[in-house]
Amino acid sequence: MPKGVAENVPDDGLTTRQRRTQPITAVHTGPGKGKSTAAFGMALRAWNQGWSVGVFQFVKSAKWKVGEENALRVLGASGEGGAVDWHKMGSGWSWLQRSAEMEMSSEEAAKEGWEQVKRDLAAETYRFYVLDEFTYPMHWGWVDVEEVLAVLKDRPGSQHVVITGRYAPEQLTDFADLVTEMTKVKHPMDAGRKGQRGIEW
Amino acid sequence: MPKGVAENVPDDGLTTRQRRTQPITAVHTGPGKGKSTAAFGMALRAWNQGWSVGVFQFVKSAKWKVGEENALRVLGASGEGGAVDWHKMGSGWSWLQRSAEMEMSSEEAAKEGWEQVKRDLAAETYRFYVLDEFTYPMHWGWVDVEEVLAVLKDRPGSQHVVITGRYAPEQLTDFADLVTEMTKVKHPMDAGRKGQRGIEW
Repeated sequence: MPKGVAENVPDDGLTTRQRRTQPITAVHTGPGKGKSTAAFGMALRAWNQGWSVGVFQFVKSAKWKVGEENALRVLGASGEGGAVDWHKMGSGWSWLQRSAEMEMSSEEAAKEGWEQVKRDLAAETYRFYVLDEFTYPMHWGWVDVEEVLAVLKDRPGSQHVVITGRYAPEQLTDFADLVTEMTKVKHPMDAGRKGQRGIEW
Repeated sequence: MPKGVAENVPDDGLTTRQRRTQPITAVHTGPGKGKSTAAFGMALRAWNQGWSVGVFQFVKSAKWKVGEENALRVLGASGEGGAVDWHKMGSGWSWLQRSAEMEMSSEEAAKEGWEQVKRDLAAETYRFYVLDEFTYPMHWGWVDVEEVLAVLKDRPGSQHVVITGRYAPEQLTDFADLVTEMTKVKHPMDAGRKGQRGIEW
């Protein structure tokens, strides 16, 4: 199928233009590499459109994505493209006092992150969201999947949301518009290599 | 397995430090989305290390990755991180006169691109290469897979190479250190949506 050509035309009463600005929910899941990396690659496109980008890293130790973080910060500050905010759970959510998150359990911190995402979606703070590793709080039952779906379903405007991580709940992948599974075929760590600077982080 | 912990220690006579700087060959293949996007995400990490990045787009119509291209150009020119060169087959390889490539067939242009990659690998021009959609010239027999493997195997220094595209030849995935298959689970075009600005390009 050539790129950009739809297989069928939906009977949804929308014009192509309306359909083109419908908010997308994307999920990158599976055991392979590239789930987050592809989400940050998508963020480059959003930035290039001049869209504001909000990244929420739902992981306690967020040291492995410094390359993407620095790149998106430089892009956000470049005066071209859109603005970028990068929120990290591991080092204290940016909207809290650092000490406040440090006193939270991982579960409390993940819940607090989701509360902020809800506030930002309601306020249309960003046009493009990366909820990095957000599948885990859902998988562990810390954040209620049905509530996430309800919030995403009713979000105002045209805010795109990409969620990454293993174990994406089935209700989420059923709901999402775009689901890609990354399958691990081969990894250098299998051959005893440790993570490499510039490759793994 | 915690990140960064090897499952076993190889009996290759190398130190961990030597193993950490071994050049990586990575392949992103499969029918799903995210193959190129994840490669450009990896390029952000390379850039952040201060490594020079060379992108070679082996596709005749290269209009779909303008977001990534603009982002990497801005990063390369930012004065932080590494330099970035972005070479596009579709609009004339940068080292040729524009008219020269326009007179070439796709096969000739792909071959010319590979010749330049060989020259750059021999000269260690870049530390990180994205050979985007380079599986196709191999799949179609335009570029000899065995020659590619021989060149990659003997490349000097610590030059990392990421190759993207469907139909990765088996010899290549056997040779590569890191292989990820992107599987399409669900795509909005299945539901009749056309490609969306900021999402697809």
